[in-house]
Amino acid sequence: MDEAEIAAAMAAVDQERQWSRLEAFGRLGAIAGNGVNRACLTPLDREARRLLIRWAEEAGAVASIDKANNLWLRRPGQNDTLAPVLTGSHMDTQPAGGRFDGMYGVLAGLELLSALADTKTVTQRPIEVVAWTNEEGSRFAPGCMGSMAWSGARAIESFAAITDHNGIRFDDALAEQMAAESDLPLRPLGYVPHAYVEAHIEQGPLLEAEGVEIGIVTGIQGSRWFNVIIKGESAHAGTTPLALRRDAMQGMVQAVTALNRLTEDPDDVLRFTVGRVSVLPNSSNSVASEVRFSIDLRHPDAAVLTARGDAVRPTILSAIRHVEAEVEESFTAAPAAFATDVISTIETVAESAGFSHLRLASGAFHDAQFVVPICPTGMIFIPSHKGISHNPAEYSSPEQLTAGTRVLVGTMLRLSSS
Amino acid sequence: MDEAEIAAAMAAVDQERQWSRLEAFGRLGAIAGNGVNRACLTPLDREARRLLIRWAEEAGAVASIDKANNLWLRRPGQNDTLAPVLTGSHMDTQPAGGRFDGMYGVLAGLELLSALADTKTVTQRPIEVVAWTNEEGSRFAPGCMGSMAWSGARAIESFAAITDHNGIRFDDALAEQMAAESDLPLRPLGYVPHAYVEAHIEQGPLLEAEGVEIGIVTGIQGSRWFNVIIKGESAHAGTTPLALRRDAMQGMVQAVTALNRLTEDPDDVLRFTVGRVSVLPNSSNSVASEVRFSIDLRHPDAAVLTARGDAVRPTILSAIRHVEAEVEESFTAAPAAFATDVISTIETVAESAGFSHLRLASGAFHDAQFVVPICPTGMIFIPSHKGISHNPAEYSSPEQLTAGTRVLVGTMLRLSSS
Repeated sequence: MDEAEIAAAMAAVDQERQWSRLEAFGRLGAIAGNGVNRACLTPLDREARRLLIRWAEEAGAVASIDKANNLWLRRPGQNDTLAPVLTGSHMDTQPAGGRFDGMYGVLAGLELLSALADTKTVTQRPIEVVAWTNEEGSRFAPGCMGSMAWSGARAIESFAAITDHNGIRFDDALAEQMAAESDLPLRPLGYVPHAYVEAHIEQGPLLEAEGVEIGIVTGIQGSRWFNVIIKGESAHAGTTPLALRRDAMQGMVQAVTALNRLTEDPDDVLRFTVGRVSVLPNSSNSVASEVRFSIDLRHPDAAVLTARGDAVRPTILSAIRHVEAEVEESFTAAPAAFATDVISTIETVAESAGFSHLRLASGAFHDAQFVVPICPTGMIFIPSHKGISHNPAEYSSPEQLTAGTRVLVGTMLRLSSS
Repeated sequence: MDEAEIAAAMAAVDQERQWSRLEAFGRLGAIAGNGVNRACLTPLDREARRLLIRWAEEAGAVASIDKANNLWLRRPGQNDTLAPVLTGSHMDTQPAGGRFDGMYGVLAGLELLSALADTKTVTQRPIEVVAWTNEEGSRFAPGCMGSMAWSGARAIESFAAITDHNGIRFDDALAEQMAAESDLPLRPLGYVPHAYVEAHIEQGPLLEAEGVEIGIVTGIQGSRWFNVIIKGESAHAGTTPLALRRDAMQGMVQAVTALNRLTEDPDDVLRFTVGRVSVLPNSSNSVASEVRFSIDLRHPDAAVLTARGDAVRPTILSAIRHVEAEVEESFTAAPAAFATDVISTIETVAESAGFSHLRLASGAFHDAQFVVPICPTGMIFIPSHKGISHNPAEYSSPEQLTAGTRVLVGTMLRLSSS
């Protein structure tokens, strides 16, 4: 494939089509403020996947699923036995999420298929677009279940007993969705693609602040997630002297206060978040018998992440008074470095197409993290307004989406010829 | 009525009958560990009320309800135009409650009706037993809605828009139950009884520790409840530097830490409890945009309660960083002193029947608090094992229940002749 063909396919990226599709997906689970609440493995998720399949099929792709419910859209190559070049992201959202996180990467892959169809471009290698299952981890924690299962980092069966807020098991929700999509061919989990490139919004403020159109991602900081259960004893709020209480709520406050000290970082690089709390019996006039809360800890340096993460449990145990604690690590993603070949290909495409660009690391984790051990991997970021993400106010402009998708198309086509 | 008649009615209290009825009510909403979860204005509540009505009617009482859904069981007196002597309590429970809190006071009233029927005793004044609506306040906060509405402390309509955890409005739940009980006569809210006596478990450790059978309650400490909303901004847990966050969860930890200092009390008399917390979006990898929590503050001294309670709002506002707070007082009950006549009547009955007794104040609030301004009021406590309450492990023995009910019968009969 020559430079002219690549340039033609990049030019065929249709800004209006991509934006109207973004809006169509945004209507599936729309919430106040232009946000989206579309959890994985729900009827809304299935509706969004059917819409994606319809548009991908119109562009000549064939849909299939694997047993982790990852959705695959394959456009044949000239030599269809070669390893495909893979792109994609995820379609699930946070409970109060935006229209762009994850969805943009899938839409960019769909736009690639449409641009290839419009220009009747035949790639040497097959092109595949994937929508990974449960990246967010907000209905069933942890996130990235689909990419972890596909890459072999975790067996899909190991997530079976995890339940959502309503007590629904992951394996039941998965089986329901697999049954609803039993008309789609089933393909095996796991294979080695030629390369993987994921487009995504930055979810941070850097590109916008620097006035740059394209972020070339060098790697992803590591994450460690923990679930903590503080166990006390329920008692009457009016009659029980404080000295005799085993108050799980006060235990949580003691634990979080100590963790704030543990995670102090003058450089403000370490990220420590307690985002989820649930209380039993959760009655205003009963002392709490149990408080469960989540810890999300991230850092780009594996040594720092190991040291602070390993200290989480002893810090909690030494902070709490009159209560007990169980601390379980639920998710670990080591810091990941992307392939220099993919990084330089993205850079070459952005540069030759005249887009401003810079290299940066990702603060959020992504499915790409789990593809790193399997094949050369990279990511393309576009600016996020004010860095806002996991929020209805998440925003990138139609022009910013187009720029990112053009760079994705150029990168995928170069990789498909290599 | 002479002493012999009173003694005969007290002796007619049937320990086995009362205990088997306690067990029958305990099966309606039974939870693990011998506990009960029976929220007000639910099908389970209606089932329990029907059971109470059946047994009360067998003892010659007539059932009616008022527009706050308080349930009234009236046994006519020799002179039925005289103001009745009233006893009762509530039948709703905490979400993880026990079999005794509230239910015992209603059962003791029922046993009074049965003992009068068995001994064919005719009282001078009518005897009434009441089951007040929503004392616990755990489904719809605040508690004591029924007794507040009856006594005129609050209009029942003022609670209309309060919602439970599932978003169901109080007025809708009330209307549903009123419709289900439309076969019962409706009586007006409010009138002046001759006296009110409520039997209850102590919900504290004192009587058991002192080896005493009967607690003669001198009054009830005051309560102030607050609802706090901490408002921050949701953000991505991986990408947002801590310095840029408006983390509502950290705001709650700051507020509770400051409130712990505000409520320090070397004498351990002040009670401060944060029992309920809810978080938005409640996702482990999103910074919390909103945290709502409850404050329950109690003290027997009105001056202390006023000073510390009035400081709650400014303490929170000066403690929080980068977030905002709304603080609303949802419930206030001033410390209440019981009538000396009722106190001395209970004491005389307990003493002459040979029960050990002591005077004490109540740490928990009770419907009796709202009856104090209306008529002479008192309470009879029986021991609570280890002081445990609002917990499935709540326990008082059949013998302890019987002793309390005998003292209630003697007290009610003396008051009915006065």
